Amino acid sequence: MEHIFPDFDKMVSRKEKEQRLGQRSKVIWFTGLSGSGKTTLATALERYLFNHGFLSQILDGDNIRSGINNNLGFSTEDRIENIRRIAEISKLLVNSGLICICAFVSPTEETRKIVRDIIGKDDFLEVYVSTPIEICESRDIKGLYQKARAGLIKDFTGISAPFEIPQNAILSIDTSNKSIEDCLTIMLDKLLSEISDQR
Amino acid sequence: MEHIFPDFDKMVSRKEKEQRLGQRSKVIWFTGLSGSGKTTLATALERYLFNHGFLSQILDGDNIRSGINNNLGFSTEDRIENIRRIAEISKLLVNSGLICICAFVSPTEETRKIVRDIIGKDDFLEVYVSTPIEICESRDIKGLYQKARAGLIKDFTGISAPFEIPQNAILSIDTSNKSIEDCLTIMLDKLLSEISDQR
Repeated sequence: MEHIFPDFDKMVSRKEKEQRLGQRSKVIWFTGLSGSGKTTLATALERYLFNHGFLSQILDGDNIRSGINNNLGFSTEDRIENIRRIAEISKLLVNSGLICICAFVSPTEETRKIVRDIIGKDDFLEVYVSTPIEICESRDIKGLYQKARAGLIKDFTGISAPFEIPQNAILSIDTSNKSIEDCLTIMLDKLLSEISDQR
Repeated sequence: MEHIFPDFDKMVSRKEKEQRLGQRSKVIWFTGLSGSGKTTLATALERYLFNHGFLSQILDGDNIRSGINNNLGFSTEDRIENIRRIAEISKLLVNSGLICICAFVSPTEETRKIVRDIIGKDDFLEVYVSTPIEICESRDIKGLYQKARAGLIKDFTGISAPFEIPQNAILSIDTSNKSIEDCLTIMLDKLLSEISDQR
């Protein structure tokens, strides 16, 4: 087996894929309390970006905990492994040229440092969804706050475990008094220049 | 936070992404002995596809064992977990609209069944790289056969562990007496119709 075509032995680079897609691949990482609006913002952002020619992939509890991380629980060790795998997958997606949009509580600076160290800080855009806990708890879409208050969930962020305010976020959004349109405007203002192909 | 735009609360579907990319996303899974030419074929295929407007991502030992699976060894349990994670990542990539090209020894029918069950048989295209062991061993690019013969690697496929011939491969290629161009022709003949957008 010989190589006739010189470039047939080189994998297609991230840069080539980014150029093909007309975008710069990054990880946009939503961090915040349960119920703060992370997945809602991620979904709206993905849709806007798609409608405007970008290609992205959302990673969130739904497609991660039911798939690759279905063998992990909620011990400290498993939470770290959960976040490590998510970061490694994000890195693979970025190397595919995609914009990877992640929505995970990721409550501590240590957690987010694990992610940043794996992905690399140049590709990691942290968005803090800063909706106050009273609002998150009043939404309680999944009924988790009620369970946490009843003591049925151990170490629940905001109730019985701390959430550390991100020190490295590119932007903060409090979704409590804003429309999706408002939130999108705020996000795009900060993020579009990061992902647009300006070559 | 309210939804003004009705479709801003729906994640972009795989189908939308496939349409955008003008391709059908599939997993093309190369199985075969070490040295059989899996990564070489994967690389040539990716390059050809990219040059012809397709977008794919290669997964192989290099980007998997050094990243998401860097905490796994080579025990039976770890080998199964290794392949399970690869299959789950492949599934995520397919949901992103990409063609996922995998190159892993995956020596047993049981191993490949784990992969097929996770990915789903409609999205799983198995390619058996059937290069004879004498040729693989004579190449011995990584020096693994020499180590295996010396007893330094336990359970080495083809030497001290079995390779089971795939029963569900869409195609077999013996790379020992063919150019890359020949191999590409054979692959494209079977695979192009599977990944081309014919809507």
